[in-house]
Amino acid sequence: MRLTCSNVDLLNGVNIVSKAVSNRTTLPILECILLEAEGNYLKLTGNDLEIGIESKVIANVEKTGSIALEAKIFSEIVRKLPDGEVLISVDSNNMTTIKCENSEFKISGQNGDNFPELPKVEKDKHFVLKQAVLKDMIRQTIFSIATEETRPVLTGELFQIRDNHLRLVSVDGYRVSYRQAPLSVEREEQEVIVPGKTLGEINKILSSDEEDVYIYFTNKHILFDLGDSMVVSRLLEGEFLKYENSFFEDCETMIQVNRRELLMSIERAALITREGRKNPIKIDITGDKMIITSNTELGTAREELPVDTEGKDLTIAFNPKYLIDALRVIDDEEIKIQFISSLNPCIIKPVDNEDYKYLILPIRLNG
Amino acid sequence: MRLTCSNVDLLNGVNIVSKAVSNRTTLPILECILLEAEGNYLKLTGNDLEIGIESKVIANVEKTGSIALEAKIFSEIVRKLPDGEVLISVDSNNMTTIKCENSEFKISGQNGDNFPELPKVEKDKHFVLKQAVLKDMIRQTIFSIATEETRPVLTGELFQIRDNHLRLVSVDGYRVSYRQAPLSVEREEQEVIVPGKTLGEINKILSSDEEDVYIYFTNKHILFDLGDSMVVSRLLEGEFLKYENSFFEDCETMIQVNRRELLMSIERAALITREGRKNPIKIDITGDKMIITSNTELGTAREELPVDTEGKDLTIAFNPKYLIDALRVIDDEEIKIQFISSLNPCIIKPVDNEDYKYLILPIRLNG
Repeated sequence: MRLTCSNVDLLNGVNIVSKAVSNRTTLPILECILLEAEGNYLKLTGNDLEIGIESKVIANVEKTGSIALEAKIFSEIVRKLPDGEVLISVDSNNMTTIKCENSEFKISGQNGDNFPELPKVEKDKHFVLKQAVLKDMIRQTIFSIATEETRPVLTGELFQIRDNHLRLVSVDGYRVSYRQAPLSVEREEQEVIVPGKTLGEINKILSSDEEDVYIYFTNKHILFDLGDSMVVSRLLEGEFLKYENSFFEDCETMIQVNRRELLMSIERAALITREGRKNPIKIDITGDKMIITSNTELGTAREELPVDTEGKDLTIAFNPKYLIDALRVIDDEEIKIQFISSLNPCIIKPVDNEDYKYLILPIRLNG
Repeated sequence: MRLTCSNVDLLNGVNIVSKAVSNRTTLPILECILLEAEGNYLKLTGNDLEIGIESKVIANVEKTGSIALEAKIFSEIVRKLPDGEVLISVDSNNMTTIKCENSEFKISGQNGDNFPELPKVEKDKHFVLKQAVLKDMIRQTIFSIATEETRPVLTGELFQIRDNHLRLVSVDGYRVSYRQAPLSVEREEQEVIVPGKTLGEINKILSSDEEDVYIYFTNKHILFDLGDSMVVSRLLEGEFLKYENSFFEDCETMIQVNRRELLMSIERAALITREGRKNPIKIDITGDKMIITSNTELGTAREELPVDTEGKDLTIAFNPKYLIDALRVIDDEEIKIQFISSLNPCIIKPVDNEDYKYLILPIRLNG
């Protein structure tokens, strides 16, 4: 194998595929990046057997071939190379030379044939979204994926196609996060469960602008095609929680409130609570006033803020972290919150559409 | 005690004095910030008995008094307060109310009289510098303070007044870092040893602009007066290393080189070494060419760069970390490096003055 390419393009590709490289594994080849030279590009691949990422770098290929290089040292070298054309060449003993300007490295690689292939995903079922939209949807739901493995499906997110929308849903036993976006072309109803780790990694790669991402899936795998890069992940098997019925429509109390003011007030009241101890904050809605209080061995906090209220006065308590997580990811200035009673969950929504819904269980107040 | 002050000024003061608050201590009051209201200001103090920091915040004092508040919760509250005037009031049971706009906290404090006083430093011996100059001098020497306690004086830096200059010197057994700056007024010869921890903390507080810092010292303590804030630290007792004779004048080989190019080349060559194993990099100076190589079980690296050489060709090896540490803090574009032989240290200097000198011991090459 022998090729030249730009150091900037190479670094970009290495940064992308590194996200799928295993850190600790019993299979040392998974700690490598696979380099394959063919046609007019260098294809880089990282694969930890759960998630695989491939990225293509434009290259002037003098001799095709492949090599697997230890990802840590290879990416450190690429990161520090001087500006210029990089020459990569591999001899018959897998000794790899990386040369750029007056810098030259020689490191030993492994036969590329030993690197596990990415799963093949048939490209018949698919849909397309703007990368920026998917990136937002993931950011706005990923925080409530279950971290405990007691129900493995809940360590992933539901990708559901319904009514010509893509819906992302995550559930951790205390809350449900729901976000939807319209699809440009009509698709049949579908649902798959994507592991949280995959979503965390792909979110780092998705761009924040107008480029598209094509999403393909089978029963076992999902493929995100970003143009120059491609992410393949296994899916989680099993039945997701039937979340639809949790979102009640009729409520006894509904408030409209400034998101940022509410977030700041809850963050302050939460200073007096200790996360580990699950001290609640108490919310009193009385007419057009919301009073937030907390009271622990550290002291007391009291916050007051104006709200627009429809319906009954109410007293309810929450783990402040759950409210903070949801309020932080919403982009709207004004939001609606619906309540039934102090024993039922609340639902946080936009003022005038159904693009997102956050359901949060309350904490029962003593006495 | 009862006063009002601006939330921004209060936060600034709290951030400064927090640097002297103890994290873990057997004396719980040292985990507090002392608040004292008198005249037209609120004085904040942190003190871990090694270093003490005092900062004054302009305040409208309605009732003088003092209180010690747990630093962690107090600083979190101050950081999150809404914009506006903050009211702090303390009742006879040390219950402290912190109020700002529609936020109100009540936390329990401790009697301010129990907080240990800062040492008094007589203000007879002193000198003055621009804060930005002292900040640079510390940054450019602090990295070679000894971390091992085998010779306690070397865990501090020498502050030495000689020839109407302030000199800062640190030594860790493998290298000497030396930096000097002229004093505006003539001072008698003096020297004290300031603990590394103190320098690390004061460096965070020193501003990067034209303000002065007044430095006072006794046999036991040093005081940095920054105007609104004041840092007092104990000094280290004992005799510092006689560093002067280490800096030889006559050399066999002298090169002039671009600092950034040399730094980048050494950083790249060091990728192949592993810090823990102390693999050296080898430097060959042949005419006007410098070749840097490293060779370990990971592979090999080779760098070539142009230098202006006076004197003999030379082969010498170093721990790359020591060269990198020095080259990173130097601001000049071009530097001089002097050598005697492969067994003697090298000295890195400016091209045309004596403002800094870095001495680094070589590693003996095998064979």
